[in-house]
Amino acid sequence: MLDAIKAIKAINQSASFNRWAGCEVHQAADGQAELRMNWREEDMGQYAGFLHAGMIAALLDTVSGYAAATQAGRVLASHFSVNCISPAIGRAFVARGRVVKAGRKQVFVAAELYAQPEGKGDEALKLVATGNAILVPVEEIQPKPAAASRA
Amino acid sequence: MLDAIKAIKAINQSASFNRWAGCEVHQAADGQAELRMNWREEDMGQYAGFLHAGMIAALLDTVSGYAAATQAGRVLASHFSVNCISPAIGRAFVARGRVVKAGRKQVFVAAELYAQPEGKGDEALKLVATGNAILVPVEEIQPKPAAASRA
Amino acid sequence: MLDAIKAIKAINQSASFNRWAGCEVHQAADGQAELRMNWREEDMGQYAGFLHAGMIAALLDTVSGYAAATQAGRVLASHFSVNCISPAIGRAFVARGRVVKAGRKQVFVAAELYAQPEGKGDEALKLVATGNAILVPVEEIQPKPAAASRA
Amino acid sequence: MLDAIKAIKAINQSASFNRWAGCEVHQAADGQAELRMNWREEDMGQYAGFLHAGMIAALLDTVSGYAAATQAGRVLASHFSVNCISPAIGRAFVARGRVVKAGRKQVFVAAELYAQPEGKGDEALKLVATGNAILVPVEEIQPKPAAASRA
Repeated sequence: MLDAIKAIKAINQSASFNRWAGCEVHQAADGQAELRMNWREEDMGQYAGFLHAGMIAALLDTVSGYAAATQAGRVLASHFSVNCISPAIGRAFVARGRVVKAGRKQVFVAAELYAQPEGKGDEALKLVATGNAILVPVEEIQPKPAAASRA
Repeated sequence: MLDAIKAIKAINQSASFNRWAGCEVHQAADGQAELRMNWREEDMGQYAGFLHAGMIAALLDTVSGYAAATQAGRVLASHFSVNCISPAIGRAFVARGRVVKAGRKQVFVAAELYAQPEGKGDEALKLVATGNAILVPVEEIQPKPAAASRA
Repeated sequence: MLDAIKAIKAINQSASFNRWAGCEVHQAADGQAELRMNWREEDMGQYAGFLHAGMIAALLDTVSGYAAATQAGRVLASHFSVNCISPAIGRAFVARGRVVKAGRKQVFVAAELYAQPEGKGDEALKLVATGNAILVPVEEIQPKPAAASRA
Repeated sequence: MLDAIKAIKAINQSASFNRWAGCEVHQAADGQAELRMNWREEDMGQYAGFLHAGMIAALLDTVSGYAAATQAGRVLASHFSVNCISPAIGRAFVARGRVVKAGRKQVFVAAELYAQPEGKGDEALKLVATGNAILVPVEEIQPKPAAASRA
């Protein structure tokens, strides 16, 4: 599925928030996807210095969208939920999503977010949040409004 | 409730993500809160140029936390869900939260996110997302790890 | 909207679970619906004698479906969530739902469940649970399998 | 963990709704639980003759509570969500839950509901719904009001 990951990496780069966050697509094929992002203390924290819940949601929602996209093409998030089960502290974060059911009208995805402790590798990944998302396939590609106005 | 809003504005400024996003606390008293944030195309968009779902979640989760804090003091988000009901397009976004039930162990909050169309005022606010959050009161203030290490 | 409520009462009677539970449709028009059900200790309780969470979900999901049906016709529940905010104790229960957004592919509904204390009227209704549902419009009426096989 | 399953079977029998539904506890140990229930057309259906969403929620919520109880003792459901991913049609239903995180204040559980087609065994189980639940440990056992009044 080289094509799927290539297309999804391109979508990832077309999202200004993902570029700002430094989200990187590490896997995207067959209903599964993986994202990685480095922690930045200066603009990603909540009041206690953990990763902000919005960033947790962003990673879970984004990886869910990419997992769905491997089976359903362009999708839009319709609903998602997040369980914050441990303080999100780490030098980097890894989000993994997998399609539970790809229907014609709705794609259901489950996702997990792991924190990578300072000075450790993947063997030390710790589950910090879980999520569920429902994505709706988009028939036609929605043009980016700003790009359209520049055209 | 001048003190509540003052304390919550201070918490808001202590979160690096909220400073980056330019979130402003407009109201926080009696179980209700309101946040405002200006749209920035260059770092807040998803692939189609709408406000990123992570930003939608961040605003809903943050306003829910502030609504809860007016009744329960320091809280941590435990669970939240988001319904994306219309494309989140606007020059600014307004998030409003209200406590549904403040229990001893859990505070339930409902929230809405509105988009302010370009060139229009509050009378034109359009509902773009709804959310629900469960927050858990924190007995002791969690020191900010990075700040602690600098001390 | 006499027709809507008549059609929805007929749907309600066609569901064997709703007949068993004694659910009654009290309102169904313009994106809103109301259901009532009497408490029965002998077959509706959880271990502590409160209304079972499944019954709470059933009432919230059902009223959400009827609220959606007033605007979208036949629908199927796709996702729903329930917050149990107070012990569900009462002689009767009242569920109210209202459409938040009726889209072409998905209808978003918010709902509340109230308990009516023993010996009191509607003025004493107490909020015991809140819910959110996403319903998907069904193009064609799904025949009841058992009814079809009997035909 | 013979004791855990024995205690949970006793709790299951103390819930009048579970007795009515014929829910049987097949497993309950080490953060996992399994329930089984036979389909009854005459009192468990929604309008199209599938298993009612309230019954789906009841099974998912109940199995989540039992999975949590193996690690946290008596618990009360605080929040749960259900994804209905396929029509719930079968001669019996199997619900499985597993604890994702057992915290001091909240226990997070993920659950699945499978349908067993007519005339087939476990090898043909089909996933029809998924769920997530948050349960709150109860310090003291809540006496069953009716039982207490009979005492």
